[in-house]
Amino acid sequence: MSKNLTQRAEDYSKWYNELVVKADLAENSGVRGCMVIKPYGYAIWEKMQAELDRMFKETGHSNAYFPLFVPKSMFEAEEKNAEGFAKECAIVTHYRLKNDPDNKGKLMVDPNAKLEEELIVRPTSEAIIWSTYKNWIQSYRDLPLLINQWANVVRWEMRTRLFLRTAEFLWQEGHTAHSTPAEAIEESVKMMNVYAEFAENFMAMPVVKGVKTESERFAGAIETYCIEALMQDGKALQAGTSHFLGQNFAKAFDVKFANAEGKQEHVWGTSWGVSTRLMGALVMTHSDDNGLVLPPNLAPIQVVVVPIYKSDEQLEAISVEVEKLVSTLRKLKISVKFDNRTTHKPGFKFNEYELKGVPIRIAVGPKDLENETFEVARRDTLTKEVVSSEGIEKYIENLLDTIQKSLFDRAFEYRNSHITEVNSFEEFKSLLDTKGGFFSAHWDGTSETEEKIKEQTKATIRCIPLDRKEESGSCMFSGKPSVGRVLFAKAY
Amino acid sequence: MSKNLTQRAEDYSKWYNELVVKADLAENSGVRGCMVIKPYGYAIWEKMQAELDRMFKETGHSNAYFPLFVPKSMFEAEEKNAEGFAKECAIVTHYRLKNDPDNKGKLMVDPNAKLEEELIVRPTSEAIIWSTYKNWIQSYRDLPLLINQWANVVRWEMRTRLFLRTAEFLWQEGHTAHSTPAEAIEESVKMMNVYAEFAENFMAMPVVKGVKTESERFAGAIETYCIEALMQDGKALQAGTSHFLGQNFAKAFDVKFANAEGKQEHVWGTSWGVSTRLMGALVMTHSDDNGLVLPPNLAPIQVVVVPIYKSDEQLEAISVEVEKLVSTLRKLKISVKFDNRTTHKPGFKFNEYELKGVPIRIAVGPKDLENETFEVARRDTLTKEVVSSEGIEKYIENLLDTIQKSLFDRAFEYRNSHITEVNSFEEFKSLLDTKGGFFSAHWDGTSETEEKIKEQTKATIRCIPLDRKEESGSCMFSGKPSVGRVLFAKAY
Repeated sequence: MSKNLTQRAEDYSKWYNELVVKADLAENSGVRGCMVIKPYGYAIWEKMQAELDRMFKETGHSNAYFPLFVPKSMFEAEEKNAEGFAKECAIVTHYRLKNDPDNKGKLMVDPNAKLEEELIVRPTSEAIIWSTYKNWIQSYRDLPLLINQWANVVRWEMRTRLFLRTAEFLWQEGHTAHSTPAEAIEESVKMMNVYAEFAENFMAMPVVKGVKTESERFAGAIETYCIEALMQDGKALQAGTSHFLGQNFAKAFDVKFANAEGKQEHVWGTSWGVSTRLMGALVMTHSDDNGLVLPPNLAPIQVVVVPIYKSDEQLEAISVEVEKLVSTLRKLKISVKFDNRTTHKPGFKFNEYELKGVPIRIAVGPKDLENETFEVARRDTLTKEVVSSEGIEKYIENLLDTIQKSLFDRAFEYRNSHITEVNSFEEFKSLLDTKGGFFSAHWDGTSETEEKIKEQTKATIRCIPLDRKEESGSCMFSGKPSVGRVLFAKAY
Repeated sequence: MSKNLTQRAEDYSKWYNELVVKADLAENSGVRGCMVIKPYGYAIWEKMQAELDRMFKETGHSNAYFPLFVPKSMFEAEEKNAEGFAKECAIVTHYRLKNDPDNKGKLMVDPNAKLEEELIVRPTSEAIIWSTYKNWIQSYRDLPLLINQWANVVRWEMRTRLFLRTAEFLWQEGHTAHSTPAEAIEESVKMMNVYAEFAENFMAMPVVKGVKTESERFAGAIETYCIEALMQDGKALQAGTSHFLGQNFAKAFDVKFANAEGKQEHVWGTSWGVSTRLMGALVMTHSDDNGLVLPPNLAPIQVVVVPIYKSDEQLEAISVEVEKLVSTLRKLKISVKFDNRTTHKPGFKFNEYELKGVPIRIAVGPKDLENETFEVARRDTLTKEVVSSEGIEKYIENLLDTIQKSLFDRAFEYRNSHITEVNSFEEFKSLLDTKGGFFSAHWDGTSETEEKIKEQTKATIRCIPLDRKEESGSCMFSGKPSVGRVLFAKAY
């Protein structure tokens, strides 16, 4: 297998596009802007789903499923949300095809089957879900209502990129209702923390927790909490958001509850989501010029074993030893594949698993059988070691932990060395393209300044970090007073 | 909680509709024909998904994800399939809304954002998937290709019923490609068997395996294998289908492979699916006038514990014992809920869990504490027993198995006593409504006869059972020769 991968230094964006396809993660489909998630890519997504789903359930949430379509009138109900979302989306206007009388074998839209009201393919489900919650919530005893949905959504993006920006994508969206604002805020923060924990412990991807500025906030939210990650090319990526909706949707859809005193009040809401975009973030956090690098905690295949042999007898002898190893590793819940295909050479296989980011590759040849050893190669460091077969399972188990930690540490170090404090707009502009990363700078708190900086540099405020220290200063752009630094970056 | 459920004998259809809503499985949404699957219903679906997914993976399949939309031209590619499917479906014609200049705060479809080619919301994914397989398959080494997708699909049904027939529903669809017809047929049969095993072992629902007649076959298939179940009202329900597609889709989408001799051939295909319709089948196989009856293997809550107390002290003492029990049961992987809500009386709780079909209810009062006993009630038989707390966990574990088996046996007996051999059309007609169920009868093998019988009785041929014995006879309708009996029934 020849990789022929564009090198990152040459063209990072091209490297990404090629890698996603060549590593069998996803590809473009015959439908504009929609991707096919291939089995290997989907297996990683399934691992992400499994962990997130477990975390959602452990924090008291249940899954449910709401309709794909949202009638236009429901969309309009929450004005800010409609304004922010409903412009570019897929609209169903008809419900029947018929044979085209002028073109034998062809179909046409039946003009007699026009819908009375257009249906929007959900770009997000607040509207349809809050219109349902109206009937589910009567009393404080029905609260909190803690629901999550795994679903596909559609946003008619003009410029798409696999995983990062596609017309259709997969995601989860949590939608909760509470009796007090404090409880709803606590929920928003809790879910931001769940996302951060997932990103760091499973994706090995360090994130900054913060809140969005008004102009970057979710349309219809009072506050948007977010986690922001840094990609290898110095651009930031928003990896998850959690919104405190106040009573906006409750009021738009008239969702009230009787409190303990019997008084009617509107409920308080949150929504939060992460999507298949995380797949793009995973690729751009760890991978290298040889292909994917996957953290063991999300790798569909954690260990691959490749036999090196010249004869059927050698392969047979090797297989006996490998089968023992495979069964020992599986008992430790390690996902292991024995690639005994006779149609491909070891070199081809080595390249393939390097491209696909399998964390550990074990090679076994006749010499290893003699010496009772295995050759163990790490994908992250591209280093090899000869290891005695005695106790190998423990060695592998530890090595997987080491790799997981080491990937995080490497990304953490990179990220930290790319948070640059700047105190003037000139400094900011000169470092933005040469160094990249996050820039910690004073800002006067106005959308006007934010907009002007964006116009001149394409950089946006990624977040106001939750742990920022109070520090009075003056805005790097306007010179007006500021109460603390925010993080600017160019972003995906 | 008052159940007020219509009784089955009174109006079976009304009973079903009420039960699905009252037991919190699903409800109609504000979108025509689309349902909301509520958390309790979704939890059952998740258990179904988990078991099926495991079985698919154990038989070598991987999951992937393909686009929601299918361009109209792709639909037309496989003529029979287009003819059979594409008529009633949701059609996306535009991709943008805009502010309505005549109605402040309202949105309208932007007439300038008309798609060049209409997109069909997938009613099934053969077209989009086979158009993708063209690029995935070059050589016999790429075969078999064994892929499954969990997805939502939309069919514009005019008369909908929760789970049984909805415009949008959830399902899985397997799509495989093979190098020989024999291997593809083997796959179709294998997946029918997987479905049958799932239906019988998890849903406790006996099924007849068979093939469809030509007129009931999937549009674009050479053979449709199916599993057919019998509901309590004597109507049949198609619970899963597996299609041998021959080379129809391979030819329509030009999917070829080089065989071992280097010769180009079209591949052989299958597709197979089950949907949220199974939820309806589950309800109508076991439930009774008091509510749902769930088989333990699919019950989100297998055991519920309800404390009976008059004072806080009593509740506290009971809680101590219950917590011990709960922790012991959880260690046995039994899903158990301790309902210690102080806002609801035991009678209310009893009704609620009866309605929701929880297989085992344990009640504990002060007397039980004294006697070191628990009161154990079975949902399926509505019987109670007082059981010593010594070894109770083993008792519960066995009881869950007993209930699972007993539900199957009861359904099996009912089904078997409702397969009636008939030898004349008069006999058939007279028993069809009075007795219901499957009717095993001779048929001359023609679509004409099948159609006439359907017109006159609304009954269809559910399947030609795979295990039918060769038995020459004469068609109950036409008197023409027949080589064996087929199963007729009215069906959902």
